[in-house]
Amino acid sequence: MFLCLSRLSLRLGRVSRCHGDRRLIATVVSGTKTARDVKQRLVLQVEQMQTHFSGFRPGLVVLQVGDRDDSNLYISSKLKAAAEIGINAKHIRLPSTTCQDEVLRNILALNEDPEVHGLIVQLPLDSDKPMDQDLITNAVSPLKDVDGLSCVNAGRLSRGELRDCFLPCTPQGCMELIRQTGVSVAGKQAVVIGRSKIVGAPMHDLLLWNHATVTVCHSRTKDLPDQVSRAHILVVGMGRAELIQGDWIKEGAVVIDCGINYVTDESRPSGRKVVGDVHYASANQRAGFLTPVPGGVGPMTVAMLMQNTVISAQRFLQNQTRT
Amino acid sequence: MFLCLSRLSLRLGRVSRCHGDRRLIATVVSGTKTARDVKQRLVLQVEQMQTHFSGFRPGLVVLQVGDRDDSNLYISSKLKAAAEIGINAKHIRLPSTTCQDEVLRNILALNEDPEVHGLIVQLPLDSDKPMDQDLITNAVSPLKDVDGLSCVNAGRLSRGELRDCFLPCTPQGCMELIRQTGVSVAGKQAVVIGRSKIVGAPMHDLLLWNHATVTVCHSRTKDLPDQVSRAHILVVGMGRAELIQGDWIKEGAVVIDCGINYVTDESRPSGRKVVGDVHYASANQRAGFLTPVPGGVGPMTVAMLMQNTVISAQRFLQNQTRT
Repeated sequence: MFLCLSRLSLRLGRVSRCHGDRRLIATVVSGTKTARDVKQRLVLQVEQMQTHFSGFRPGLVVLQVGDRDDSNLYISSKLKAAAEIGINAKHIRLPSTTCQDEVLRNILALNEDPEVHGLIVQLPLDSDKPMDQDLITNAVSPLKDVDGLSCVNAGRLSRGELRDCFLPCTPQGCMELIRQTGVSVAGKQAVVIGRSKIVGAPMHDLLLWNHATVTVCHSRTKDLPDQVSRAHILVVGMGRAELIQGDWIKEGAVVIDCGINYVTDESRPSGRKVVGDVHYASANQRAGFLTPVPGGVGPMTVAMLMQNTVISAQRFLQNQTRT
Repeated sequence: MFLCLSRLSLRLGRVSRCHGDRRLIATVVSGTKTARDVKQRLVLQVEQMQTHFSGFRPGLVVLQVGDRDDSNLYISSKLKAAAEIGINAKHIRLPSTTCQDEVLRNILALNEDPEVHGLIVQLPLDSDKPMDQDLITNAVSPLKDVDGLSCVNAGRLSRGELRDCFLPCTPQGCMELIRQTGVSVAGKQAVVIGRSKIVGAPMHDLLLWNHATVTVCHSRTKDLPDQVSRAHILVVGMGRAELIQGDWIKEGAVVIDCGINYVTDESRPSGRKVVGDVHYASANQRAGFLTPVPGGVGPMTVAMLMQNTVISAQRFLQNQTRT
């Protein structure tokens, strides 16, 4: 069913090579390219807002506690993307000595600030003091929770109220990549590997409410190869390097790899390289569509954060004009 | 694996008949009996609370708008169960002319009432005025939402925070019935048919976080018999009379039927009878364990509402003694 989709392949910027009835190489679904397209669209949307509301800019705050290197890296990529789009992004860094009440006070003040439309707390919290991460995540107003991590957003998503919530960025990015393939989700067998709060669990919800029949697998699943082999659409977010083997995959399937794992690679100056949760070389011989790592889901996560911020700003303006 | 479990069958009060290697009749999992056991346990728990806190009684309020006959019937069974257990249950009926603001004011007052530990709004609302059911459901404090229907509770459940939420009553009742069979859930293939807010969606969550590999099927699923045939544990809540045929079912499976459907039966004075979503007679020849309709999941829903109310009262007392 998925064989030789040359028209779609061209849309995706790659031509897949077919040999008789046998696909040799999967079509690469580029997150880098799709994220760029999304950001270009957002630039136009922000310009349009400014045409109607002179001087208005969507506002995003990234609240950080402490000074983790990896967090700094992620934050800088978010700030860079925001700047490109015209989002007014602000980075608030609280020292690691900050107590929980002070973090909460900051969040509550930002919840009230009409110039802030998106508010995210950079996780993990890097603090010397005891912190209840759940309490802090849920202190963010559901109206500004552009990471989509609060209970209220998770509850709405899990019960199918997709329009009333913010969709978590990574699963939303995966859906966007699936859409890029042109393969419809409704009625398909989707398999999600992993059940984390930021990837697997909301990914299940999104696929389900886009009308796929969805199976969630995890560390306690006994027959993983068999489960994988049933998937028309496979989304993997287990955090285990190259776990999913190509010969497990249904021929022609859409395979979305959310894994980011560092493995030893003596040939590189850094001594390591990044790989996904899917064994790329073998999956490439079976899948119809496959996301690379890096350059697949990763860039989409930041693009979707920007999209959520723009949506939040649009909702804010709609409410303003209504009142 | 599930064949001839005579010891378990005895626990369940029925002896299954085995003939060589072939099971002829599934073991009936009685909700009526299990609900009675649960209620007896709750009686003791309430007595224990009263030993420590003289005069204390768990308090439940059922808020009704309008006067639907079916709602009246459900409410009376809840009030009866509460009375048996020692829960102080109060029925507030607002006329169908009540406006939404007045309903919300009632809810907010009950949220503040320290004698009310459980608060449920009887659905559907039977009102002449426009009502936002979602807004009303979510106005109930998550601390008193013993129906487990608010976004906050749904969000916690869907992300695996089972101890911090109230579990919706019907899926919780199903889990209790599955436990009665002695079949462990972890690592099993569970299939849920239906994705409603009160049955299918939370049932998926409960099975997943009890470590089953879970597939959710629904009206858009194309290969329902095949999906059903894979299930070690099958929970059906589609609302379609006798949809699931016996020959679809894996031999020895645990089959939990949440359906309540009225079908014509000329042989009865009422001209109708109640059947489940599973074709009982044929399923009985294949399943290892099977819930009847009526007398299966139905009685468990009320028992679990009582259990949630008692849990809420216990949490209230724990907080009181802490402060």
